[in-house]
Amino acid sequence: MTTSDALENVTDEPAATEEKGDGYVQPVVDVAALTTLLDGKYVDVRALVRDNLDQHHQILVDAEEMSTADFRDRVRDVVVEMASTGQTGMGFPEAYGGGGDIGASVAAFETLALGDLSVLVKVGVQFGLFGGAILQLGTKPHHDAYLADLITGKLMGCFAMTETGHGSNVQALGTAATYDVATQEFVITTPDDASRKDYIGNAAAHADVAVVFAQLEVSGEGRGVHAFVVPVRSDGLVLPGVRIEDCGRKMGLNGVDNGRIWFDGVRIPRANLLNQFADVTETGDYESSIENPNKRFFTMLGTLVQGRVCVGGAGINASKVALTIATRYAAHRRQFEAADPDQEQLLLDYGMHQRRLFPLIARTYALHFAQEYVAGALHDVFMGVTDDEQSRRKLESRAAGLKALGTWHATRTIQECREACGGAGYLSQNRFDALKADTDVFTTFEGDNHVLLQLVAKGLLTDYSSEFSDMDQFGMVRFVAGLAVETMIEKTSAHKLFQRIKDALPGGDQWDQEAGLFDPNYQRAMLRFREEHMLAGVARRLKRGIDNGMNPGEVFSRVQDHVIGAARAHVERMVLDAFILKTRALPEGDQKVALNLLCDLHALTTIEADRAWFIEHGRLSTARSKAISREINGLCRKIRPLAVDLVDAFGVPEAMLRSQEILA
Amino acid sequence: MTTSDALENVTDEPAATEEKGDGYVQPVVDVAALTTLLDGKYVDVRALVRDNLDQHHQILVDAEEMSTADFRDRVRDVVVEMASTGQTGMGFPEAYGGGGDIGASVAAFETLALGDLSVLVKVGVQFGLFGGAILQLGTKPHHDAYLADLITGKLMGCFAMTETGHGSNVQALGTAATYDVATQEFVITTPDDASRKDYIGNAAAHADVAVVFAQLEVSGEGRGVHAFVVPVRSDGLVLPGVRIEDCGRKMGLNGVDNGRIWFDGVRIPRANLLNQFADVTETGDYESSIENPNKRFFTMLGTLVQGRVCVGGAGINASKVALTIATRYAAHRRQFEAADPDQEQLLLDYGMHQRRLFPLIARTYALHFAQEYVAGALHDVFMGVTDDEQSRRKLESRAAGLKALGTWHATRTIQECREACGGAGYLSQNRFDALKADTDVFTTFEGDNHVLLQLVAKGLLTDYSSEFSDMDQFGMVRFVAGLAVETMIEKTSAHKLFQRIKDALPGGDQWDQEAGLFDPNYQRAMLRFREEHMLAGVARRLKRGIDNGMNPGEVFSRVQDHVIGAARAHVERMVLDAFILKTRALPEGDQKVALNLLCDLHALTTIEADRAWFIEHGRLSTARSKAISREINGLCRKIRPLAVDLVDAFGVPEAMLRSQEILA
Repeated sequence: MTTSDALENVTDEPAATEEKGDGYVQPVVDVAALTTLLDGKYVDVRALVRDNLDQHHQILVDAEEMSTADFRDRVRDVVVEMASTGQTGMGFPEAYGGGGDIGASVAAFETLALGDLSVLVKVGVQFGLFGGAILQLGTKPHHDAYLADLITGKLMGCFAMTETGHGSNVQALGTAATYDVATQEFVITTPDDASRKDYIGNAAAHADVAVVFAQLEVSGEGRGVHAFVVPVRSDGLVLPGVRIEDCGRKMGLNGVDNGRIWFDGVRIPRANLLNQFADVTETGDYESSIENPNKRFFTMLGTLVQGRVCVGGAGINASKVALTIATRYAAHRRQFEAADPDQEQLLLDYGMHQRRLFPLIARTYALHFAQEYVAGALHDVFMGVTDDEQSRRKLESRAAGLKALGTWHATRTIQECREACGGAGYLSQNRFDALKADTDVFTTFEGDNHVLLQLVAKGLLTDYSSEFSDMDQFGMVRFVAGLAVETMIEKTSAHKLFQRIKDALPGGDQWDQEAGLFDPNYQRAMLRFREEHMLAGVARRLKRGIDNGMNPGEVFSRVQDHVIGAARAHVERMVLDAFILKTRALPEGDQKVALNLLCDLHALTTIEADRAWFIEHGRLSTARSKAISREINGLCRKIRPLAVDLVDAFGVPEAMLRSQEILA
Repeated sequence: MTTSDALENVTDEPAATEEKGDGYVQPVVDVAALTTLLDGKYVDVRALVRDNLDQHHQILVDAEEMSTADFRDRVRDVVVEMASTGQTGMGFPEAYGGGGDIGASVAAFETLALGDLSVLVKVGVQFGLFGGAILQLGTKPHHDAYLADLITGKLMGCFAMTETGHGSNVQALGTAATYDVATQEFVITTPDDASRKDYIGNAAAHADVAVVFAQLEVSGEGRGVHAFVVPVRSDGLVLPGVRIEDCGRKMGLNGVDNGRIWFDGVRIPRANLLNQFADVTETGDYESSIENPNKRFFTMLGTLVQGRVCVGGAGINASKVALTIATRYAAHRRQFEAADPDQEQLLLDYGMHQRRLFPLIARTYALHFAQEYVAGALHDVFMGVTDDEQSRRKLESRAAGLKALGTWHATRTIQECREACGGAGYLSQNRFDALKADTDVFTTFEGDNHVLLQLVAKGLLTDYSSEFSDMDQFGMVRFVAGLAVETMIEKTSAHKLFQRIKDALPGGDQWDQEAGLFDPNYQRAMLRFREEHMLAGVARRLKRGIDNGMNPGEVFSRVQDHVIGAARAHVERMVLDAFILKTRALPEGDQKVALNLLCDLHALTTIEADRAWFIEHGRLSTARSKAISREINGLCRKIRPLAVDLVDAFGVPEAMLRSQEILA
């Protein structure tokens, strides 16, 4: 069994073996050993990045003090210096100076998120988006022409996909690439302002080359969106026919030079079409190995999935920085007399403060392990270990889902940690300023999170059928409605699920009443039940709407919150499974005990957060619901003595925390 | 009946008179008339501020482009110019050039929150905190000496309360003011770094004078915290014995010069004690009209309640800016084909988008009316209309509670609106950058929100008894535990409540099953039930903990989330009551219909958000819970055609929206 389908086949264990309650002995956390566990397969890669972060730690201060122009150059310089250590090229073929290991490149990127995030995003733009497009959409001539130089940062490029008027709807973009058979050139044109390229990182100052996504037209026939290499600068000057405007100041990431680009009949040689999936012959014949234009488009887009995996991981890692600062602060900051009339109490000894921080720590661990899992699947698919179409589609779905949850988690966690540090959290030197401002866009770039969850839902509803990625909302509604609901219910296999659950848990039909709250089989069963039930509900609603003669768009609009809810439930279940799989594999000992506490906390807070749904759907009694809330408070008290060790194990370099004064 | 107790006596109406459902006719919103309704008693004041905002709109751009030092000066200049229009002095006595109207000053401040928030906070520091302290804690000689000049901004001052080591726990601060009978001076000293004054607005650059809170010591005896006027600068130079350090860059509000202050034996004349509530005679006798030192401290602090009312209002008004931009954007931005295969669909026609924005619009209206109510109570108390102790305490409690809910609402709303605008929301020119960064500190300044909700809970648990504000957590736990639970239940009057509810609603004991979801009596009953039930539960838990021999601090820590939950439930009920009172008083017509839709949406989403609790406590069947969610979606569809008008009615000046490009 390869990693990429392990989460499909998580089996229940015969019974919960662990003693909780009376026999409980407080574990001791070996911080270094836990860091090693978290670092996983890529301990050395992460060590290299931590070392690079430490060497360039001054950039956290520069971000505040430098002018935008200076800081942009500073970020570029740091990126190029980091490139020279091999850190940013790990995903490229060794033949061009890369490391030949996709998994390593994701690990390096994630770890980089512990530091300045303009550096991170600049790396993402240059090596992930620009470099990734050349690698995945181009062929050997393109690799020969560009890879070696882009890996060192000698050639800077940008990735010109998004347009002002179309945002997440890439298939609708307006830039045209018309083949001129007479000169064997493509003519790149921006027809209107809605079709200008927008928010393009590296465009405003540094890129010499752009990978431009445009509607290909050959011999008068539209062939859909394709990617082209278009020179945009030479010797620092913007080339004729190209107009570039600076996007101006942003909420954060001001070390990245985002810009807008217009093309006015820019001519590029025929060879500049990135022709991995389609080509145009000298004489103007269009050729592609993928006949269906929609399928071709989504196959091209699918090769860029690494970007989403990386952004999700970045969100999770940025959360670690915030949690480390807030937890350490709370462990020595005192406010108000409570337990002792003569001494103020540590923030971390307040129940509410534990409730605010500890579930976020637990969720960060859960997301970390889910991310490790998805990054592993990415590695397997792109290194050719499991390169079938089903694996690719599942990867795309999981990458989309985890990107959404990981980045929303960052927004929420950083905010909660900022507030938990009071006024001190508001000072830029204590990091939350940059963490908040820089991560904010994560929820909407590389695909808006809601749109991504719709993608996840589509995959589930259509069982990753071949039509999966070809459909917009309109198509999906019609497709789903065309299926018999019975088929859908069979697909979502609710009755099979119940059978499996009943076999694994005590109580038979009463499994949800009898099983222990700390039994991972119970926790999984709850999330699995929710996922399947929601999914079947969406299918029924879509079908009913169409059967009632409603317009598919209106149907979709009305069911949209259920669609997104079902997708979220699916990803939540995947995240919990990843955490359970990880802890289950550990040898008995303190580390396992400690991680089981976190895993229980994560599982129970996840159920608690949606307990109304479970009650409404007959899977949670009110007495049991209240018991879950009580147990969560109990878990928080058990985690209290471990809390600082648990965040220290994230391995955030001290210099990345700054906050000298409040953590003194 | 005065405004300040109107919310105590909201009576149920005999029956819901309105026809919802089949007879529904889509109302037309008269935007100007709705703005007038929202502006309330202070239409002219708000018009003046809107005009001033418009005149100084360039400052929104300056905030991005100027250096910190230049922007600080620019903000000061704008504040002084606004002061010359009378805008910022409305709460001061007319004899000194003020407007003599506390309510007007709050209205002016709130409206100012539609613009640059450094200007707002600078105004708050100079006129609210510094000026308010002189006015409320000082006596005629201080008024004569300072008020006229501070009202014009000629004399700039700061409010040096918060210390690094003590944060929200003001009573524990360390700065000493020792009376030297020989020279008839107070000697102000910072004993250690934990006692330096921190985050003091106006301190780093502009203040000549500080109101300093310090532990008064007279003839070797500690007398608790008192306030003193201490000169800190002359001709722009920091005076001897005073050390001021710049707090440096902050997440936002960088037009406000926050600083830290240390005092090294600074001598000030005896007359510089702000002696409204206590004085020291020439010969070193301490005199106060309030014998109990705790009571004296909280009385002094209580006079500063206006700051909390103002911050809450600012949060609510900043939310209006975000909602106006996001709603207008969604009303013309298209993404993906849904209803029509040939045209992309407006964001605002997606059900999920409506679900994201409309409940926030409804809640903003609700909070606006609650704020109007609390500001009215503030006016009545401080203008002497209802100046009894009970009214003051209730005001303090409501101000604290609404500050917490209003500022959390701002954080949540601005974030949701930013995400709803995608990448465009990330550009500084589209306002969310400043809105997010500048409002972020609102949740923790003027009292951390969690601490404020604990204050609210204390007031409720002790029925605003005279000991109310004197107690820390420690004291509160012992006090509450000392009461018989029966007394507490009597006080929270659950059984009386049930009787009232049963009288007002159909169904008798089954009121929660039978009443219409759109019946405001039902909606109120639900929130009232939750409030009373939670409060009684907290009392029982506190008492049980003490009875079991636990340390009060440990008891408090374990019950803390219930304490905060009960306080929040109380404030939520108050907010809904304010909205219901407002709509009920309207004449029949389209405006009333439209506001009733919003009020229903607010009430039902508030119940939905905590539906698990209502189910757990037997007040909501699962069928009814699901019905509420369906009705919310239905309300959103009804509100859809009104949405732009509803945000336009907030009356945000066009220039304050910026976003020219995305709202074009």
